[in-house]
Order: sequence, then C-alpha cells, then structure tokens
Amino acid sequence: MSAGLPQGFLFSSGIAGIKTSGRPDLALALIPDGASAAAMFTRNLVVAAPLTVGREHLRVSRGRIHAVIVNSGNANCATGNQGLQAARQVCSNLAMMLGIKPAQVFPSSTGIIGVPLPVEKIATALPAVAGAASDDQSGFEAFANAILTTDTKKKVACESIRHKNATVTMIGVAKGAGMIHPNMATMLVYLFTDVAANSRELQPVLRSAVEASFNNMSIDGDTSTNDTVLLLASGKSGVPMKAIGKQFAAALHRICNSLAEQIVRDGEGVEHFVRLKIEQARTREDARKIARAIANSPLVKTAWAGADPNWGRMLAAIGYSGVKVDPARINIYLGSQAICQNGGASLFDKNAAHEYMSQAEYEIRFELGAGRASLEFLSCDLTQEYVRFNAEYST
Amino acid sequence: MSAGLPQGFLFSSGIAGIKTSGRPDLALALIPDGASAAAMFTRNLVVAAPLTVGREHLRVSRGRIHAVIVNSGNANCATGNQGLQAARQVCSNLAMMLGIKPAQVFPSSTGIIGVPLPVEKIATALPAVAGAASDDQSGFEAFANAILTTDTKKKVACESIRHKNATVTMIGVAKGAGMIHPNMATMLVYLFTDVAANSRELQPVLRSAVEASFNNMSIDGDTSTNDTVLLLASGKSGVPMKAIGKQFAAALHRICNSLAEQIVRDGEGVEHFVRLKIEQARTREDARKIARAIANSPLVKTAWAGADPNWGRMLAAIGYSGVKVDPARINIYLGSQAICQNGGASLFDKNAAHEYMSQAEYEIRFELGAGRASLEFLSCDLTQEYVRFNAEYST
Repeated sequence: MSAGLPQGFLFSSGIAGIKTSGRPDLALALIPDGASAAAMFTRNLVVAAPLTVGREHLRVSRGRIHAVIVNSGNANCATGNQGLQAARQVCSNLAMMLGIKPAQVFPSSTGIIGVPLPVEKIATALPAVAGAASDDQSGFEAFANAILTTDTKKKVACESIRHKNATVTMIGVAKGAGMIHPNMATMLVYLFTDVAANSRELQPVLRSAVEASFNNMSIDGDTSTNDTVLLLASGKSGVPMKAIGKQFAAALHRICNSLAEQIVRDGEGVEHFVRLKIEQARTREDARKIARAIANSPLVKTAWAGADPNWGRMLAAIGYSGVKVDPARINIYLGSQAICQNGGASLFDKNAAHEYMSQAEYEIRFELGAGRASLEFLSCDLTQEYVRFNAEYST
Repeated sequence: MSAGLPQGFLFSSGIAGIKTSGRPDLALALIPDGASAAAMFTRNLVVAAPLTVGREHLRVSRGRIHAVIVNSGNANCATGNQGLQAARQVCSNLAMMLGIKPAQVFPSSTGIIGVPLPVEKIATALPAVAGAASDDQSGFEAFANAILTTDTKKKVACESIRHKNATVTMIGVAKGAGMIHPNMATMLVYLFTDVAANSRELQPVLRSAVEASFNNMSIDGDTSTNDTVLLLASGKSGVPMKAIGKQFAAALHRICNSLAEQIVRDGEGVEHFVRLKIEQARTREDARKIARAIANSPLVKTAWAGADPNWGRMLAAIGYSGVKVDPARINIYLGSQAICQNGGASLFDKNAAHEYMSQAEYEIRFELGAGRASLEFLSCDLTQEYVRFNAEYST
C-alpha cells in the first residue's frame, strides 16, 4: 500500500466508450473486506436512477459497501424504469464478477440527461477495469480522472491523523458542479478513510462536513439531479472514530472545504473566485440565504466579472434575499476598505477597489448588524465565456 | 384634449442634467383637479427614498394626487436621511410652484444607486417643465421618453371602454426592469384613467392586474429597490368604476400585460422572448414558483440563447423549484411537439425543435399532471451581450 492512501481500498479506471471523446469513463473502487458507508444526495426532486438504486443498496446492505462503480458521459437521469433497470444491471454484473451481493455495490453516473445508459458497453469493459484495480497512487489517480466530465483538472484532498502507533488516512476526490458542463453539472464526491466506524456514527459527521462546505458554495445556482457525496470507512487503521472524534470531524471538514474550493475555481468560464464572509447575521441560515442571494444574482456576478465595486447591486440582493434585515445597518468591505457604510455610500478609493477585484481570488465581507452568526460562502463571477459555453453546447 | 388620452391629465418633460447624456431626465404629470391613487411597490427591503416618501404622501393625502414627478439618471436609493430630505424637497418645490400640498405630489426616481440626488438641478428645471405641461399626445410621449434609462424604446399601451354616451380611457406607460441597465434595473409603471373611483376601490383592481402581469415575468431574477406601479383615476369621464367593473379590470389587465411584454422584449441583450405556459399545477402559486425556477436558471437561459431543446435542464429546474411534483408526470412541449414525456426523453424532430427555438418569440408549455391551475409567465434568454453590458458598466 502506498503512503497517502487509506488502507483497504483498490482503485482503477477504464474506457467503456460512453464518452465520444474516448477518454476514461469508468471508475472503480474496491473494498475487498467491505467498508461502512454514509451518503448524502441531491435535494432535487428529479433524481437520477443510480441515486435511487444507491439509496436502496445502502439500506439493503445495512451500509456495508464492497464496490463503487462510477460512469461519466451519461447521467442515467430522466430515463424511467429502463434507467433503474440499467443501474441495477451494472451492479449485478459487477457483483457477479466479484462474488459479492449486488446491494454491496454503490453506483454513480454523471453526464447527459435523458439518454439510455449503454449497459452493454459498461458490462464489456468491467472485467478489465476490475482486473486493473490496485492499491497504489496511480490507481487512485486513474479513478480521480475517470469521474471527470469537462472539469479541467482532477480534484483531490487528503489528511492523516496520528493516534498512538497508528495512522488514520482520509482521501477525498470530486468532480465539479455547475458551469462545468451544460448537461453534466453534477457534483460527485467520494471520501475514503480507514478509520473504524459504523454507518450510524459516520452519517452525522458527514452531514455536518457537507453543510459547512458543499452547501456553502454556488456557481450558477442550479442544483443537479445526480449530486452525491459518499463516505466509506474500511476500519483498516484499527483506530475507532470515537477515539479521534473531533480531530476526525475537523479533518473531514478540511477535505470537503478544499474540494469545494477546487470545484468553484474550476467552474466553467470562471475568472474570479469570490469568498463571501457574511457576519453579524441573526442565524447561520439567514447568513446562508443572504450569501445565496448575492452569489446567484446575475447583476452581482457580472459586476464581479468586470471587477466593478458595485455595492448597490449587492445591497439590493440582500434586500430581496427573504431575510429580514435593516439596510441602514449593513456595511460591505473589500479587504480593509469599506465600500458601503450603514447601507449607504462610503468614500472609498475606486482604483484600489477595482485593483482588489481584479485579483483571481479575493473576499467580500458583509456586516449585517443583526446578530452573531457568520458564514463563509464560495462563489464566482459570471462571464461571457460561461454563456458561450452553455449556449453553444447542443443536445 | 387629444383623442386617446384620458381626461384630466397634463404631461411634460424636461432636462435637469442628471443624465450625463443630456437626454430628458424629468417627467411630470399634472392632475389639476386631482386623481384617486392606488400603488404597489417593490418587495425588496432595501427601498429607495422616493418610495418611502410616496407611501407617506398617499397616506397623508388620503390617496388624492395632483402631480407625479419622476427623475431618471439617479435612483435616490441607499442615500439615507439625506435621500429622504431630497425627495421631500423636490415635492415641496413642485407643490409651492403649483399651489398644492407637498403630500399631493407623488415622486419617483430611477438610475444609479448610492449617489446623492441633485435637488438643485431638479429645482432649477422644474418651472420650465411645469410650464410646458399639455394635454396633447406630444406631452404624453415626452413623459414616456423621459422616464427611460437604457430602454431602447418607450413602452405604452392604451384601452378605452364605451359606457352609455361616455368613454372611459386608460393609458399606461412603463420603463423596463432588469437587464436594462446595471444600476438602473428599475420598473416604473404609471397608469392613467378618467374613470371615477376612490383609492379603496382602485387598490384591489390594481393588485390583481399586477399579480397577473408584472409578477409573472422575469428577466434576470433581480428585484429592484425602486419598483413602483401607480394607478391614477381622475373621474373626468363621469363613469363610476362600479358601472363597468369587470370591463375595467379586464382592460387594466390587458394594459399591464402589454407593458410587461414590452419590458421583457426590451431587456438588455435579449434575443429570444420566451412565454412559459405552466399547466396542470396544483395551485397558481406552485405554477409561479416553477416558472420562476425555470426562468431564473442560467443553464436554462443559456440553452435558450443557443436555441437548444435541452429539456433536461428545464426538468432539473422544476425539480429544485421547491414545489412537490412527480417528475414522471411531466410533459414539455415546443409548439405541438413533445420534447419530454412522462419525465423522460421523447422522440422528437431536433431540427424542427431547433428551428422553433430560433424564432425571436415562442412558447414552451409544461404539463405537470398535479392539478388544474395554470399560469403564463414571460421570460427571455441570457446572452453574452447581457454579460458584456453588465460587466463593462462601471460605477
């Protein structure tokens, strides 16, 4: 086993020919002795078939997973009963090959909506993919690359925790969401660790890490039908999660945060990565609503594209966020410079502000004067390149 | 009095020099014998000073208005106490000049946010504007032009109702909302009629016309701080509203609908005007939420820009609209052609669909299979030109 990867996992990838580009479109993770699983899924009511099947398998297997099979290039969404059968068929084929139960396989798909999943192509490619599975870094990188669609780079983050004489390792891999590709705006995240824990212990830790990371970002405000975050714990480190509870939660949070940042930075057409700091909100939920209103406003996002310190548009977005605020108490800062004070104009150096916003990455801080809750939220600008990309793509 | 205008109103415009372009930026309507007023305002919590003062004046005057003064080029928003004083000052100056009470003046502003209103410039220009007021068509057209900011054309609609030997005339004028101009995304609508009615009678009729028109459109999803719809009734036709209740309501609705269509068509960078027909919803409010989710999705709007029959993006937007729907019951039509059936792919002629969506104007129909409520919603595409326009503008 190579340093940096958690124990108990094997990875590989392959080419089934789902992507017309001929690039890898199958990714496989094997856990020969099984892993405890926790998962979170999209809140979109239009849910892709693999999510329905994945939920079912987690229930039937009581959260014990031996394989994760991901295909890119086809989302298997809006494909009806045929789509459910296709997802089940892929799991059965793999299970038969590995001598495990179909319910111990967790399936994911990302890609075009409304097109039947080419099950035969996947079935044909599976043996070679399974045969290639390895526990070294190259297998993991192959996995990380094969789940991508139009992401420009793979997204990986890792952490380790020393406990007595043992080391708990955790590694996360993601493909991007929104602005990434018209029909492929799905976020897939897989988190692998060798901590020892059961599903019930893992679920709340995963939930709070997701709430504090992936739920605090927005690229274009669209919510995919296939979004999935899966956490698998092999137990091979021998260290029980409860022995390192807080450390583990913090490490998981850092990994999720890093992946979220990588996703937003790699958004389609993104030129400015903008970190919103919402402070003095009444509640965190208020802060999130306000951040979303700002981050989803086309007028705000185009101003960011132009490096324009247009505080009026941001103030207006706060005003229609649905959160009760007193505009007269709102301050907005670019770095140390206030561009809006008490809900009104502030004398500021426009050249300095423009220069600040010309950076590839910067933060905007909001004081609401309503309470003590605060939140960080990741967002980005809306560029002509985004529109070109998403308008020219054709189904 | 010229044919086509309601009796009892005089109109004019002038140049105060608020707009740097030197184009008309003051619009005045006079009602020498007064008019009953009803009004609706933005739901944004960040509210411009003239809206606060306008509400106050409607209350103090018990809904009797003798003058409407509109300036373009400056929104008088996020200007604090100074802004309120400025709005009051403009009303006082005009009232003194006309020998009426300040509370009988209704003020509006549209333009840049956060910049003090140049009261002196307005005061200097007012006498000439008031002196030029006339009851002929040219005065009205001057009014219609002076309220514009970056709209490319004036927006006017009129109706008349015969009742016994009298005619009730109604004329509406608007400036556009959203995508129109970065800091000037305000919708202002003035409806003038000579029906006889008091404020209490007018308010519910106005509310229902606005709900069924301006509330069913979306250009970029942003809500301005200055949105105002004002209905004034001079009574000069001698016909009481209750005598023509239904006809009047229908005519007002048609005017609002026509103005809403003109506003969306004239949105910044708009190449496709898209009418969404939401059918078989459980409630009208459900239908509106679904229409808004579709109309505000950047992924959907960029697909429209590319004339791409991408039903998957529309289905996904319905899925995250917050309305409980069964995706398997959803059908989507372009004209007579189904592009999505029972939430899944439908065999359709892609060339014909692309051609249909290449039209400057078309409709998309959604069957939800959830109930009997339906709604029409006006929207438009999101183009590179919109982003360019709103990114390049600088405060």
